[in-house]
Amino acid sequence: MYKVIFQFENNDSVESYANEGENLLEVARKSNVAIDAPCSGNGSCGKCRIRLISGDLNSKRTRHITDEEYAMGWRLSCCSTVAGDVTVEVPDIASAYRSRMKVADLSSSDEVKIFEEAKAQVEEAGIVLKNSMSVVELEMNEPTLDDTMPDNERFVRAMEKTTGIEKVRVPYSVLRKLARVLRSSAFHVKCVIRKTARDVFVYDVMPAKEEVVIGGLAVDIGTTTVSAILLNMTTGEILAKASSGNGQIRYGADVINRIIESQKPGGGKKLQKAVIEETINPLIWQMCQSCNFDRDRIYRMSVASNTTMNHLLMGVDADPIRKEPYIPTFFKTNALFASDIGIDIHPDAHIIVAPNIGSYVGGDITAGAFISMIWNKPTMSLFIDLGTNGELVFGNSDFLMSCACSAGPAFEGGDISCGMRATDGAIEACTIDRDTMEPNLTIIGKEGTKPIGMCGSGLIDVISELFINGIINAKGKFIREGERIKHDKYGMGSYVLVFEKDADSVKDIEITEVDIDNFIRAKGAIFSAIRTMLNSLDFTVDMIDDVYVAGGIGSGINMRNAVNIGMFPDIPIEKFHYIGNSSLTGAYTMLLSTQAERKTYEVAQNMTYLELSTVPTYMDEFVASCFLPHTDSSIFPTVKLK
Amino acid sequence: MYKVIFQFENNDSVESYANEGENLLEVARKSNVAIDAPCSGNGSCGKCRIRLISGDLNSKRTRHITDEEYAMGWRLSCCSTVAGDVTVEVPDIASAYRSRMKVADLSSSDEVKIFEEAKAQVEEAGIVLKNSMSVVELEMNEPTLDDTMPDNERFVRAMEKTTGIEKVRVPYSVLRKLARVLRSSAFHVKCVIRKTARDVFVYDVMPAKEEVVIGGLAVDIGTTTVSAILLNMTTGEILAKASSGNGQIRYGADVINRIIESQKPGGGKKLQKAVIEETINPLIWQMCQSCNFDRDRIYRMSVASNTTMNHLLMGVDADPIRKEPYIPTFFKTNALFASDIGIDIHPDAHIIVAPNIGSYVGGDITAGAFISMIWNKPTMSLFIDLGTNGELVFGNSDFLMSCACSAGPAFEGGDISCGMRATDGAIEACTIDRDTMEPNLTIIGKEGTKPIGMCGSGLIDVISELFINGIINAKGKFIREGERIKHDKYGMGSYVLVFEKDADSVKDIEITEVDIDNFIRAKGAIFSAIRTMLNSLDFTVDMIDDVYVAGGIGSGINMRNAVNIGMFPDIPIEKFHYIGNSSLTGAYTMLLSTQAERKTYEVAQNMTYLELSTVPTYMDEFVASCFLPHTDSSIFPTVKLK
Repeated sequence: MYKVIFQFENNDSVESYANEGENLLEVARKSNVAIDAPCSGNGSCGKCRIRLISGDLNSKRTRHITDEEYAMGWRLSCCSTVAGDVTVEVPDIASAYRSRMKVADLSSSDEVKIFEEAKAQVEEAGIVLKNSMSVVELEMNEPTLDDTMPDNERFVRAMEKTTGIEKVRVPYSVLRKLARVLRSSAFHVKCVIRKTARDVFVYDVMPAKEEVVIGGLAVDIGTTTVSAILLNMTTGEILAKASSGNGQIRYGADVINRIIESQKPGGGKKLQKAVIEETINPLIWQMCQSCNFDRDRIYRMSVASNTTMNHLLMGVDADPIRKEPYIPTFFKTNALFASDIGIDIHPDAHIIVAPNIGSYVGGDITAGAFISMIWNKPTMSLFIDLGTNGELVFGNSDFLMSCACSAGPAFEGGDISCGMRATDGAIEACTIDRDTMEPNLTIIGKEGTKPIGMCGSGLIDVISELFINGIINAKGKFIREGERIKHDKYGMGSYVLVFEKDADSVKDIEITEVDIDNFIRAKGAIFSAIRTMLNSLDFTVDMIDDVYVAGGIGSGINMRNAVNIGMFPDIPIEKFHYIGNSSLTGAYTMLLSTQAERKTYEVAQNMTYLELSTVPTYMDEFVASCFLPHTDSSIFPTVKLK
Repeated sequence: MYKVIFQFENNDSVESYANEGENLLEVARKSNVAIDAPCSGNGSCGKCRIRLISGDLNSKRTRHITDEEYAMGWRLSCCSTVAGDVTVEVPDIASAYRSRMKVADLSSSDEVKIFEEAKAQVEEAGIVLKNSMSVVELEMNEPTLDDTMPDNERFVRAMEKTTGIEKVRVPYSVLRKLARVLRSSAFHVKCVIRKTARDVFVYDVMPAKEEVVIGGLAVDIGTTTVSAILLNMTTGEILAKASSGNGQIRYGADVINRIIESQKPGGGKKLQKAVIEETINPLIWQMCQSCNFDRDRIYRMSVASNTTMNHLLMGVDADPIRKEPYIPTFFKTNALFASDIGIDIHPDAHIIVAPNIGSYVGGDITAGAFISMIWNKPTMSLFIDLGTNGELVFGNSDFLMSCACSAGPAFEGGDISCGMRATDGAIEACTIDRDTMEPNLTIIGKEGTKPIGMCGSGLIDVISELFINGIINAKGKFIREGERIKHDKYGMGSYVLVFEKDADSVKDIEITEVDIDNFIRAKGAIFSAIRTMLNSLDFTVDMIDDVYVAGGIGSGINMRNAVNIGMFPDIPIEKFHYIGNSSLTGAYTMLLSTQAERKTYEVAQNMTYLELSTVPTYMDEFVASCFLPHTDSSIFPTVKLK
C-alpha cells in the first residue's frame, strides 16, 4: 500500500492509501475527494487535472496536457496510476464551473421577476394560487379537575371546531411536544396544517404569540446544476434563491455514467449522498441563513428533475432506466417524506415529485411544459429545455408530444475547456470584429468583474461570430490566422477570447476546435430532434408559432446567433422566448397552487413520448446537423456570412 | 475533579469524573452505570449498595448496612459523596431481581397455554381471530419495449386486481427496493400487506419463492418488568417469549420518581432510551435469535402499559400526569410507528397502544380487562392487576368502574430485602411448621435450583404462615423466638428462610420486619381500594361472583393465604382465578384480531374511573387495612390462627 495525499488550494488535505497500479481518479473517489470528471474517467474530457507535487505516478500523455503543463506536474487523474507514495494538488480550477454555491441577491429584481411572471401566467390560465397549507389559531379551555380530557383530545376537538373537518391527524412529532406547547402558551396555540376535504394533518404546533411563515422548498435537480428557492407558501414570496453544481458530477457528467456508478457497491448510497448531503442540504442551509429562516419551518418541498435524477435522489434503483426495455420504477409517487431521505427540513414535510412520463422525459419537463403554458394555447408551440439532456415538447391545447436527446453538458459550460455555468465571471455574450478579429465581451457580474470562462449563451455567440466572420468553417475548423488564433503541436486550433493577464484564470480563456466540435454535436442533437419530431407529426418548422427556450443556458441567449449556428430552426426571431429555468418555476407553482400541481399531472398524463432512437431517420438528421449551420443550407435561408 | 471508577463483577469498568461532594448515585447515573435505586436515591430502600475498593467516599451510616458490611466496604451509593479519587465495585447482586433477561422455554406447555386459553376465550365471546395483515402473491407480465409501464404502476395494478381494492399505498421503503425485487423474481413476488375496506398498505415485497411469516410483537411494559412475545400474526402461534426488568428502574421504582427523573435535563430521552434501547430492543434480539426470525419481518407491534409508561416510551412529556389536574397527553393514539422511536423491527411497523382511560389507569388495565372477559358477563366480577400500581376494575356487561392505588413494587419482589421476580431461584411458595418454625419451600426452576430470593407469591405465603402460626403479630412484629429468628442491634426482627450456606446468595435469605411492613402497606392499598370502590357503588364483597387476579406475582399465588393476610376479601376461595399477565395476553389478542382491538377500545370507552384520593373514607380504609388481616377482624371471619 502507498500513501496518497490530496492537497487543496485552501491547504486542507486528505490522506488515503492505494495499491500499486490503482487509478488515481478511483482513489480520489473512494476518498471522497471531488475531482471533476464529466466523462467518468475515460480520458476524453480532460477535466480531471491534478498537479503532481511529489512522489510517483504513472501517467499517460494526452492531448489535454501540453508539454509545458506536463513539466509543471499537470496530469489527468483518470490517466494516472499510483506507483509509490504520492502527493498531488487538486486545483480548485478543476471545479470552476461546477460547484461554487451561489446565493442569489434578491434585491436584483431580475431574480424574482421570473417567479412573478410565472404566478401571473398561472392565474391568467384560471388556476387558483392556493394550496392546502395554512396556519390556524386554536384557543382551548385549560384542564381542571372537573375537565380532565387528555391534551390530544382537547386539541383535536378544538381543531375540528375551527376547521369543520372531523378527521384530524396528529402525528408523533406533534404528539411529542403537545403537552409542553399547550402549557407554555396557556392553551392558546398556532398550528401549521394541511387541510383537504377529507382530513386535517397537523405539521406543527407552537405558542400563538409566535410569528409563523410556512416555508416551501422548490428544487430543480439538473444533471449538472441544482437550483432551489425558499418561498412563503402563503404569499408566494421568494425568500431566498440559490444554486450550485450537482455534487454527483464527479461520478459522471451524464445520467448514463451516473447510473453505471450507482451500480457499483455502495454506489446508490454514494450518489444519493452527493445530491442530498453535499448539494441540496447545503443549499437549504445557505438559503435559510441568508433570510434567517428556521429550516424546521419548511413544511413542503417540490422537486422537478429528470427521471434518473429523481430515482437517484430517492435511492431507487435506476439501472433498469438505461437497459432495454428502459423501465423506471415510477412515473408518479406521493409516498416521499423529508425524513425518508434525510432532506434537512421538517421531517414530516411531504416531497412532491413532478411526474415523469418516460425514462428520458422526466419531471423537469412536465413541470416546465406546464409553466410554459403551451398546453393552454390553440397555436402550435415548441418547448425546448436545454439541459444536459435536451428535451422538447411540441403541441397545443389538443395534443403534446415530447422527445429527448443527449446534448451533453455543453449548454451549461461542461465538456468545454473554458466552460462554466452562467454565474459571475462568465462570458455571456460576445461579438467579434470582422476585420481585427478582436472580441467584445459581456461578463456576468458587477462592473469590472474579470472573466473566468464562458457559459452556454456566450459559447453560442462566440461560435456564431467565428462562423459568420469566416474565422471558422462549417466544420468548425479555423481558417484564418491572427494574434488570437493559435495551433498546438497536434495542429488543433483555438481562439483566445481573453489573454491570461486580463483573465481571472491561470491560463488564456480560449475556445478550441475540440470545444467547437463538442458544441456542434450538442446543438446538432437539439436541431435534429426538432426536425425528427416535427417530421413524425407531418409538421414543418414554419408551422411553429412560438418557441419557448428554457434551461440554465443564461438569459443572455442570442436567438439570432442560435439560428446562425443551426441550433434552432430558421424562423422569425420574434417567435423565440427565453423563459429561464422553467423546471424551477414549474416546481414553484406546484408548491404554491394545488390546482397547478394537479394540472401538471394532467399535462404529464396527456403527453405522448417519441423515442428518437426508434425513428430510422434520426441518425441521418443528426449527422446532417453537425455542421454550421447544417449540411443543407437551404433550410437556413437567412443565415449569411458577413 | 476526582476520578471515579466503577468496577463490575465481570471485570468491566467505567471511568468517570466528579467534583468533591457529588452524590455517587448521581455520578453513576450520568456515567450510565446501572445501580438499582427503586426509591430514586432517598436512602429508604437500601438497594443501591456498592463496595468501596479504594479511595475516599463520605458515606452516611444507615440501617441497611450492618457494621460487618460497613467494615467490608459496603455503602449505599445514594448516601455517599465523592471525597477524592475513588474505585467502587458495583455488585451484580444489586440488580438480582431486576434485569436478568429470560427467554422462555416454549417447550414447556405452561408458557404457551395462557395464550391458547386467551384465544379460546376471545372466540367464545364471538370475536373473530382475524387481523388486517396478510401475504399476497402477485405475478406480473415482464415489461417489454411495447409495454413500458413503470414498475410501481405495474405493481399497483396487479395488487388492485388481486385484492379488489383500488387505493394501494406503496411507501418509500417498498418503492426503493421494488425494481430489484421484481427483476430478481421474474416479476413474481409475495407482499406483506395491510388490507382494509378503504385501502391496501404494502409493508414489504420479496421474491415469491421466499417463505414469509408475518411477525407481530406484543409487549407489556410494566413499571418493574417488561414482558414480550413474538407471534405469527396469521396463525397466532407464539414463536418466542421473553421478559426482563425495565431498564428505567435505576431512575426510580415507581412512576412518580420516573416522571421526576424525566424532567431533569435530557431526562425524557434517557428514560426513553432505558426502556427502548436497553430493554425492548434486547428482548427483540433475544427472541428473534431464539427462533431464528428476521426482525425486519415484524410488521406490527402492540403495547400494553400504564399511562406513564406509554408516555415515557414515546418520549412524550409525562409531567402533567403527576401534577394537578393530572392530564396525560393522550388516551388513544394511532400515530406511532417503529421508526419514530427506534424500536428495532420493520421501520414502517405500526405500534398499537392499548388505550389509557386516565392518568393512573392505563392500557395495561384496558387490555387486561378486555381479556378477563368481565365485560361479557352478566355476573359481577372484580379484576385485580397486581403490579407496581395496583389497579382494579369492577362490573359486568352493563357497567365497569376502575380505580388505581400505589402498591409499590413489593408484588414483583421490589422494596423487599430478598425480593425478586418470579423467575428461576425464586421462592414461590412456602409453608412453616407451627412447632419447629422450619419452612418448607417451593423454588422456581429445575429440580435442585438453589433459592436466591422471594417473589410475590412466596412473600404472601411466608407472611401468611408467620401470622397464622403466631410467629408475628397483627402488626407484623416478631413475637416468638427461635433459631431462625434474629434481631439486629436496632431491635429489628427477621426470619431466616434459607441460611447462606444453602442459598445461591452471599447472605441469608430472610424476611425482615421492614419487608413485612412494606408488604402490609402494599396489600393494604389493594384491599382498601377494593372496599372503597365497592362502597362507592353500594356493593359489598359478598356480592362479588368472581375475582380475576392478574400480574407478575406468579402463578403460584395461594389465594387462601392472600385472604389470610387481608389482601383479598374473605369470600369463597373458588371464586378466585389467577389469569397471569393479562396485560400481555390482552396485547396479544389486540394484534391477532382487529375485532379484539376494537373491543378493547370499546371496553376502555365504557369504563368509568374512580379517583380514590377524592373519596374521603379511603385514607381511613387504608390505615385500617394495614394490619393482619385487618383492624376489623369481623370482615375476615374465616381467618383463624392455628
